Amino acid sequence: MSLKEICQPIKKDLEIYEKEFKLLLKSNVFLVDKVTQYIVANKGKRLRPILVILTSRMHNTNGAALDQRNLKAAAIMEMLHTATLVHDDVVDSSSQRRGMPSVSSIWKSKAAVLMGDLLFSKALLAMLSLKSMRAYEIISVTAERMAQGELLGLERRKDYWMEEEVYFRLIADKTASLLAAACQLGAVSSSDDEKDIAAMREFGENLGIAFQIRDDLLDILGKEKKTGKPIGNDIRDNKVTLPLIFALKQARKQDARRIIRLIKRGAGKAEIKEIISFVEIHGGIKYAMERANEHIELAFKSLERYPDTPYKESLQKLVSFITVRES
Amino acid sequence: MSLKEICQPIKKDLEIYEKEFKLLLKSNVFLVDKVTQYIVANKGKRLRPILVILTSRMHNTNGAALDQRNLKAAAIMEMLHTATLVHDDVVDSSSQRRGMPSVSSIWKSKAAVLMGDLLFSKALLAMLSLKSMRAYEIISVTAERMAQGELLGLERRKDYWMEEEVYFRLIADKTASLLAAACQLGAVSSSDDEKDIAAMREFGENLGIAFQIRDDLLDILGKEKKTGKPIGNDIRDNKVTLPLIFALKQARKQDARRIIRLIKRGAGKAEIKEIISFVEIHGGIKYAMERANEHIELAFKSLERYPDTPYKESLQKLVSFITVRES
Repeated sequence: MSLKEICQPIKKDLEIYEKEFKLLLKSNVFLVDKVTQYIVANKGKRLRPILVILTSRMHNTNGAALDQRNLKAAAIMEMLHTATLVHDDVVDSSSQRRGMPSVSSIWKSKAAVLMGDLLFSKALLAMLSLKSMRAYEIISVTAERMAQGELLGLERRKDYWMEEEVYFRLIADKTASLLAAACQLGAVSSSDDEKDIAAMREFGENLGIAFQIRDDLLDILGKEKKTGKPIGNDIRDNKVTLPLIFALKQARKQDARRIIRLIKRGAGKAEIKEIISFVEIHGGIKYAMERANEHIELAFKSLERYPDTPYKESLQKLVSFITVRES
Repeated sequence: MSLKEICQPIKKDLEIYEKEFKLLLKSNVFLVDKVTQYIVANKGKRLRPILVILTSRMHNTNGAALDQRNLKAAAIMEMLHTATLVHDDVVDSSSQRRGMPSVSSIWKSKAAVLMGDLLFSKALLAMLSLKSMRAYEIISVTAERMAQGELLGLERRKDYWMEEEVYFRLIADKTASLLAAACQLGAVSSSDDEKDIAAMREFGENLGIAFQIRDDLLDILGKEKKTGKPIGNDIRDNKVTLPLIFALKQARKQDARRIIRLIKRGAGKAEIKEIISFVEIHGGIKYAMERANEHIELAFKSLERYPDTPYKESLQKLVSFITVRES
């Protein structure tokens, strides 16, 4: 099933959202407009706005038309997401080039820092129109978690003996928090029942964790042609993920140490192949899949309290779509 | 008169503020604590918190004790300021090294981007306790202006024929906006009269513009020993400021072009001396001083509506202190 089919019940909403998003990006600085045009042209899957709209619709039990607030909330979430992507680029690109970036990438990183700040502040500004302190609370907590998670990730890069618990905290803060915020904003804009907001937090959080585990698995399993990214990127980048953590703990100490040496030395194509086969042999892939499935189940459970509607159904399909996708 | 003397009436407040600020910075990520310890140890003049407290006290006409909200607002302003400084470091350091930063400075810039984001989000989180939508509005507008101003600055670097109007927009957004926000937050926490908030916006804005013009002048006039910075840093860095803009417009085209060539080529000590003398001869220094004085007058005018109190007096002294300082 395609994302387009899943979003059929909110097709109209998404069109209005799209206009709202472009409007929010407007600026009177030339450099800003150039970058935002690029952002609009390269739009992603719009996962976060879709979550806001679907969860909002699901809570909107009397079937009233969605007011502009919900679509604004959707646009705000996409802006926040874009802001973090822009800052991530600064963080990641410098490491991939092993500390020797080109002049042009530095220029880009200067603009990227400021562009990320601008997008973030524009999202805040747009939030005023939601007139909801609860929404500000959700966003503030989320922004702190995301930054904290990124910093923890930076601190724990190359920490091959990382505890699983740290890995889970890291992906929950870095990735799941924003999906949870999207679902919570959806609830907030249609309901003032704190139980709804809590259920949506649970839903988004578990969805996000499963999503990130799958994403980390794709780096090992993914077919290069489908994902567009070379396999083993995380390994090359010294990013420690669940399948590797598990395999290193399962293997004999001396084998694990050998693998770590391979990674540290800067693994080439052959070594990447060897490392991936090491992860597989020691059950890292199977284990990560099981853990992802646990969180998928929890996500489904959070939806049980809601009556069956096309929106709930779309959310269920969305869970399957983004956690078993191959690209 | 020293800053300490000026702050005598709010000595006690500043002590409580200091504790509040340290509390806000707390985190459970090791890397974060290391950086924040450094921030606390290298605290600056605390200009923004001082402005919040003084303006809040000035509006607090019934003389009631300041509640924690105002001191929290002061801590929030310092956090926002610190966040922008941390991001500025990324932006500036890469240019000073002419596009070839060392590996260590790149590592720092990665952490700096995330640290700035974290500080900003912590400030937002702290704002919840102010329970004021108006405060969120002020901060959101200010954050957007600052990012926009920085981007405009990046776009206009090396634009030696920049219009004065653009320069003023640039420094208003980059620098004055945050001082204005500090004064507005002070008003908001003691008064709900929009006229007070508007007066404080005017006050802070004009103070900030005068402050930045003086800062730009210091780069030309400053005695190296006092400021700790070498003279002509802005020139070396291709940052175009008011004295230079004015001088280039006043000079004969061919002389101006010669000076621009000198700057572009990368001016050494002798050339810096020549450029500064060019600025002086063509009245750039005198002109910038006059413009700064206009804004100082406007700042004083915004205080006229308030009754005479020790806090108003301190604010007046503060205006003089930060606009005529030599370091």
